[in-house]
Amino acid sequence: MTGGYPLLVADLIGVAVFAASGASAGVAKRLDLFGVAFVGFAAALGGGILRDVVIGATPPLAFADWRYAVTAVAAAVVVFWLHPALHRVRRTVLTLDAAGLGLFTVTGTLKAIEAGVPAVGACLVGMLTAIGGGLTRDLLTGEIPVVLQREIYAIVALGGAVVVAVLHRIGQAGVIPLAVAAVVMTVVRLIALRRRWSAPVAVP
Amino acid sequence: MTGGYPLLVADLIGVAVFAASGASAGVAKRLDLFGVAFVGFAAALGGGILRDVVIGATPPLAFADWRYAVTAVAAAVVVFWLHPALHRVRRTVLTLDAAGLGLFTVTGTLKAIEAGVPAVGACLVGMLTAIGGGLTRDLLTGEIPVVLQREIYAIVALGGAVVVAVLHRIGQAGVIPLAVAAVVMTVVRLIALRRRWSAPVAVP
Amino acid sequence: MTGGYPLLVADLIGVAVFAASGASAGVAKRLDLFGVAFVGFAAALGGGILRDVVIGATPPLAFADWRYAVTAVAAAVVVFWLHPALHRVRRTVLTLDAAGLGLFTVTGTLKAIEAGVPAVGACLVGMLTAIGGGLTRDLLTGEIPVVLQREIYAIVALGGAVVVAVLHRIGQAGVIPLAVAAVVMTVVRLIALRRRWSAPVAVP
Repeated sequence: MTGGYPLLVADLIGVAVFAASGASAGVAKRLDLFGVAFVGFAAALGGGILRDVVIGATPPLAFADWRYAVTAVAAAVVVFWLHPALHRVRRTVLTLDAAGLGLFTVTGTLKAIEAGVPAVGACLVGMLTAIGGGLTRDLLTGEIPVVLQREIYAIVALGGAVVVAVLHRIGQAGVIPLAVAAVVMTVVRLIALRRRWSAPVAVP
Repeated sequence: MTGGYPLLVADLIGVAVFAASGASAGVAKRLDLFGVAFVGFAAALGGGILRDVVIGATPPLAFADWRYAVTAVAAAVVVFWLHPALHRVRRTVLTLDAAGLGLFTVTGTLKAIEAGVPAVGACLVGMLTAIGGGLTRDLLTGEIPVVLQREIYAIVALGGAVVVAVLHRIGQAGVIPLAVAAVVMTVVRLIALRRRWSAPVAVP
Repeated sequence: MTGGYPLLVADLIGVAVFAASGASAGVAKRLDLFGVAFVGFAAALGGGILRDVVIGATPPLAFADWRYAVTAVAAAVVVFWLHPALHRVRRTVLTLDAAGLGLFTVTGTLKAIEAGVPAVGACLVGMLTAIGGGLTRDLLTGEIPVVLQREIYAIVALGGAVVVAVLHRIGQAGVIPLAVAAVVMTVVRLIALRRRWSAPVAVP
């Protein structure tokens, strides 16, 4: 991803939003300031760390570029101090989270492809990039990961990753088509939220 | 492992069985279809991903060869739809799981040795390959890993890994001796299951 | 870290102490002998494995040098048999744990710097080396990691890691200054324990 400054800014917004979600979970579990910052860091960067370890890009970006860690920790600390006010901006947070989902899927899938991972594997890595942070957040706070239980979230990432892989295969992975893919994922996720779509659960 | 087609088929059977065990756990926890597929994938391929990351073989086979992921997800989806019928084939599933234990230990230990890991470490990696999926499955579904609590399971893998390392050291790591080692592990595991062997627990 | 024999001995003492903490947690959760040994191994070496995977030093030291695994498992087995006697040496164990915290932070931070990780990332890796084992121990035994909840522990590691990075930057990362840094971390941790210092928790 040599997308330059605009992509970096977009990426850091995604990091901040995911860190806020992790920090909120940490506050709810009565973690201390360090714990809240740590879960925020893990929620924001866990997916990317997993992605980079799996594709062999060490050290992961989360450790190689200080702006990622600083953004994540700063967002988590802000939530630690301001969390009662967060409720009022809940809709904004969910919208930004949906944007992060789209963005992380696109960058994760592309990075995996560029690292030589075949298409099916790259789609899985892209999806893991998007949901890995939330998984880590829930495991650290003693919860069964919410992404496994309900709502249309990971499946949006997986579908989006397939679109990105196809775009790459047909030589159309330019900035515009990728941005459209990220926006479509974000919109689908927001519609799924609003309409309370959910995946089927097995009949007992 | 350039064991060719028979080994691939055996490997994929192990993947399918471990995926079925993960999917069953997911169904029991009322996860949705995606969650069941994800836990199935993690149970089947978590051990191998851990192995490949630890020995530096990136991207892990689970992402490099689409047949692994597709087999795992397909097995998990079948369990999602058919799980009430699974009870009737419980004995078959446990037998296949024991076979997977033997097989994954052999391939994991050999891969680690071939990647240059010294003998003791290679045995640990082999054992982790066999039990890593079950560990991941239990962590994702909010359980203390069953492999740490009771039954003779991991210790069979560790013993088998030592045998594989010794065979390799004395230049006898051919197909026949390795197959015998896998079969012996499977049989020991099945006997341990039937006789309800268990490891000691500390006196309180 | 080519610190030679004294450093190896110090490192293995840290491994033994962290293994004992993991084994104690395993005994408390009624795990069997294998489970206790496994959690001991994970508590002692989980941080180092995470460090080595993140900096691309595969296979991790825990698998490349048999003395680490053997020390961890031996310490865990001793705890399994002698745990009722552990209560009497609780103060000793906590002191050794504080020493392990200082030592693992120093070696983890230096290893990351030497592997080319930039300063901020190297401090995070150093801290993760020190707290990663405890995190793994708590996740395996079904607990929210204690390091996230209370007490001054990780923050000592992070502060110490920053000192190590600064020492390295100004060309003063010799044995004496590093040893002083480790000792200061140990002392701060012990004072924090004795005075029951704790980090703030968010106002509900």
